[in-house]
Amino acid sequence: MNSQFINPFLASICNTLETMAMLASVPGKPALKKGASAGGEITGIIGMAGDKVKGSFAISFSKPLILQVAENMLGETFSDIDETVIDLVGELTNISTGGAKAKLADDGHNFNMATPVIVSGKDHRIEHSLKGPVITIPFETEYGFFFVEISFTPSN
Amino acid sequence: MNSQFINPFLASICNTLETMAMLASVPGKPALKKGASAGGEITGIIGMAGDKVKGSFAISFSKPLILQVAENMLGETFSDIDETVIDLVGELTNISTGGAKAKLADDGHNFNMATPVIVSGKDHRIEHSLKGPVITIPFETEYGFFFVEISFTPSN
Repeated sequence: MNSQFINPFLASICNTLETMAMLASVPGKPALKKGASAGGEITGIIGMAGDKVKGSFAISFSKPLILQVAENMLGETFSDIDETVIDLVGELTNISTGGAKAKLADDGHNFNMATPVIVSGKDHRIEHSLKGPVITIPFETEYGFFFVEISFTPSN
Repeated sequence: MNSQFINPFLASICNTLETMAMLASVPGKPALKKGASAGGEITGIIGMAGDKVKGSFAISFSKPLILQVAENMLGETFSDIDETVIDLVGELTNISTGGAKAKLADDGHNFNMATPVIVSGKDHRIEHSLKGPVITIPFETEYGFFFVEISFTPSN
């Protein structure tokens, strides 16, 4: 997996949060994932599956950050991760991946997106079962960090 | 979503656990999922994405059950959910979905499989972000229950 696969995701996430939540985010240095911690308290996960490429994408938010994102997007205050916030994480996951999908399709890497799954719970851990590498990227915002994980490889 | 989509998953899971872990399992009554608890301490999730159908599949094991499954499959005793057990849940998720995929393809419902993602942690919760229903099915084994969740619908 190289930057050709990673960059469309990074650009799409930043764009999604900027346009939907008025939130500027700055990607840190991508790294090979070691260990299993998801980093956040709520994580959106989406599978990607094409004839030639497949993978999974995860975006993991701290609780304070996602509550602020929800407030920015919906104009009301949230004190806890409720059904509305969970749905919103699904939407953000979907839209971010959709943006990357469009860019990757332009480059000849076609895939369909599965339905997002949202995992919540303190200290939940996530592993991508893939023989290839998983790249993790921290993002900084004024309300705290979030983390993105991408595994994306040829199907066989 | 109807039994035409559900039954291939149920048959494939039972077959996978029977052949790989010498474990007989009996499906209970499928129900519409309400609430978000995953039911188990470790959950394998896989996305499914085709031109006409998409969805997600999750299988959630209690800790005692998955440790026994690992022992049956690998011939050694496990006292905790370690990397080996996590990989094994990924494999079981992959193989179960692969069996259902083959059957559904015979019926004209084609999709590709994403890479499995494994979530662990006590009391983690899982939601499938889909406008359609999520079906949950409990399975009984001599070592305890596990739960399966399936969302599978036309893409648009």
